[in-house]
This record gives sequence, C-alpha cells and structure tokens, in this order.
Amino acid sequence: MIKSQEHEYQHGSTTCQGYWAVDESKSGTRPGILVAHEWGGLGDYVKKRCAMLAEMGYVAFAPDIFGKGVRAATFPDCEKISKPYYEDRQLTRARAKAGLDILAKHPLVDTAKLAAIGYCFGGIVVLELARSGADLKGTVSFHGQLSTPNPADAKSIKGKVLILHGAIDPVVPPAEVAAFEKEMEDAKVDWQLVAYGGAVHTFTNWNLPTSGMPAAYNEKADKRSWQAMQNFFAETIA
Amino acid sequence: MIKSQEHEYQHGSTTCQGYWAVDESKSGTRPGILVAHEWGGLGDYVKKRCAMLAEMGYVAFAPDIFGKGVRAATFPDCEKISKPYYEDRQLTRARAKAGLDILAKHPLVDTAKLAAIGYCFGGIVVLELARSGADLKGTVSFHGQLSTPNPADAKSIKGKVLILHGAIDPVVPPAEVAAFEKEMEDAKVDWQLVAYGGAVHTFTNWNLPTSGMPAAYNEKADKRSWQAMQNFFAETIA
Repeated sequence: MIKSQEHEYQHGSTTCQGYWAVDESKSGTRPGILVAHEWGGLGDYVKKRCAMLAEMGYVAFAPDIFGKGVRAATFPDCEKISKPYYEDRQLTRARAKAGLDILAKHPLVDTAKLAAIGYCFGGIVVLELARSGADLKGTVSFHGQLSTPNPADAKSIKGKVLILHGAIDPVVPPAEVAAFEKEMEDAKVDWQLVAYGGAVHTFTNWNLPTSGMPAAYNEKADKRSWQAMQNFFAETIA
Repeated sequence: MIKSQEHEYQHGSTTCQGYWAVDESKSGTRPGILVAHEWGGLGDYVKKRCAMLAEMGYVAFAPDIFGKGVRAATFPDCEKISKPYYEDRQLTRARAKAGLDILAKHPLVDTAKLAAIGYCFGGIVVLELARSGADLKGTVSFHGQLSTPNPADAKSIKGKVLILHGAIDPVVPPAEVAAFEKEMEDAKVDWQLVAYGGAVHTFTNWNLPTSGMPAAYNEKADKRSWQAMQNFFAETIA
C-alpha cells in the first residue's frame, strides 16, 4: 500500500531528484520526515528507510542534496561528490531546506509535525538544517558527524535533537562528541546522545559486512537506534 | 493490587531490611528486578520505584546494602554510611548478592529472567554485582558512578548493560565515562550509554528541586530514562 516514487525538483539552477514514500491508502494528514542520504548520494538504502517510515504512518521524503545523477559507488568518488557540502554548510543548509519545503507542501503532511533524520553525511545535513532555524520538531542523526563551523548557530535550533552514535566510531571520535555536547549545552538545546557499545561507523547499514573498520553493520545497534528514534518521534511529533 | 512489605534477612552477621513489591493478584512467574538504593540507604524513593516495577508486572526487591536501620538524611551522614561500600567493593558485591539470592527464591520469580537497576550509589552496587559474575540478564545504572577498582572483572559480566547518564553530571565526569566505556569495550560487554542533555546528578529523583548543582530533578530525562529501561527490559528479560 506504500506508494514510492522519484521526484524531480529545482534548487536554484540545480536539478534534484528526491524520493517519496507514503501510504496513500490512508486518509488524513500525518507527520512528515525528511530522510537525508549518505556521502554517496541518494540510493537504495535511504529509499528503504523511507518505505519503513511510510509503513509506520509517516510521509517520508529523501531530498537529493547533490543533484540529479550525482551518485558515487567508490570511496574516492563519495569523498569527491560530498566534499563541497562538507565545506560549504550554507549551501548544504539551503539544499536541505529546499527538500524540507517540498515535504511540507505534500497534501498529506501535517506541517506542525516535521522531523528530519540523516545517515552519516546526512547527519550533518539534518543538524545544519536544524542550526539554520528550520521548523523541525525533531532531528535525528544516525552515525553522523557532529562538528560544525557554526556552533553558535545551535541557538537557532527550534526542536529536539537525538544523536545515535557508535561508541567506537573512528569517523566521529570522542573529541568531536565532546565538542558537540558543549555546543548543545551552550545553546540550551534539548538533546540526547546514545552511544552503542561495539558499534563503528555506518552501523545501521545492512549492506555492510558485520565486522571491519571504519564501518560495519551492527544489527543490535541498528534495531536499538531505530527503536530510540521511534520513542523520540512519539515525544516530538506524535 | 500491589503487595509491598519490608523483609528482614541476614547477610553473615549483618541484619538487613529489604523491601518487596509484587502484584500477587496475578499468577505465574515473571522477571525479577533488584533495585539498589542511593547512598542514603533504602528509603521511600526506591520503594516507589519497586511499586512502579510491580505495576509493570515484575517482582521487585530492594536489597538493604547498609544493614537494618542504617539510613541517613544529611549529606555528611550519607557520605559516612556509604563510604565503606564505595571502598570495599567485595563487601558491596557480597551484600548485593545476598539480596539477589532473596529475589531469586521468590516463588513468583522466573530465575532465568533476573535484572538489576540502581540509583546513584546503587549504580555502583549493580555494576559491581554484574562484574562479580552474577546471573543478571540486564543491569541498568541511573546516574550512577561508573568507576571501579576492578575493571578487568568486566569480563565476568554475563548480561547486557545500560547506563543512563546526566550529560553534565559533575559527580560522574567525562573522564569517568570514558574509562567506563573502555572497560566495557575491552571486556566485549554488550553495553549502551544514554547521555541526557541538561541533566545533572540524581536527575530521576522527584524529591529534588528542578535546578541546582550537583543534583537536580529533570522530568524529561526521568521519563526518557524510564522508557529506555523498559525498552532494555523488553530485549533482555521479556
């Protein structure tokens, strides 16, 4: 009963190809979830997450941060296509906001109940969107980087923040976690961080092997973090 | 329908006065939860937690770590009566184990489903009990201290561990958290830690004012941590 489809839209001169998943067999507005992709671009993994969210009753939209057709399969290519967005956070915010605007205009979305989740690089995307002052009731980062050139902007965060973190993630080391916690405290944000023992980077991605560095799938941490997100949504956008 | 009562028992030459809460109107065995008190001794706060657990369908038993009548109302007295148990962890483990044995003998307890929770000093109690190799499927610390003189003993931990931590708790500083995480990783324990932004020491205790240092009640962190415990129980002793 889930309808999912590609969705082409413009951000300035950039053509983007996002992705919808929504259960159109049910009537009535519902919360809308923005789902931000990893550094390789919008692919099957976040599409599946969108479908899972739609099955839970949400409208899910994955914005295309890099632009139509900009996708990568190898690590060097991932690094290459994502680098501009790691470096230019204003561009990343604007591109994410274009996606949020699309989501908010969906006729089945209750615009008072918007949230955003992001994976790895997508964690940066949704946190920067929150720091820009976007109207998000909740922001969730799954194994995302936490650093920002604009920590003072955290004072603009309007909703609550949940960080789901691999305790031994070499990509998001303790010093980065500590700086983020200070950023959140200084700005008096309502935030929580869950550290999953034994979990490294990308711990929710079932396409990875279950061991290895710096990234591996960890089924327990995947399930626990998905549950934590659901509890968080129950509090923020129910 | 909850039956609660004091329960006197011996640990060596020490007379202890623990506390039961159980719904005796229902039949059938169920998981048993040990509930370890704070540094002031077994009082109304953990008794209420026992009642809450009994209402959720568990058999709850609060062991008396300090011995019958050893209770404190002032900080200096709390420090005085708890100090021997901070210092002699073998004594603390043995005293806790005496309580766990009581719990396990209750006719309504399913001995394959034992867990322990502890508050502040009680967090030390349950973690030391776990490190002693006790048959606990789950151990939960609420704003408990995490340090131990016996980190290598973590290899004896049989169940899963959940730490519910105030992110700015001055009593459990970042270095102590980091050392604990290393202890758990080195021993390959299945562990998780949730840090609650804005929460200081004793954040679950509704008897405290809602601001102040080093301890204060934080209703959001209280509710979220109680929910996290329930999710953890659903995974470990359901």
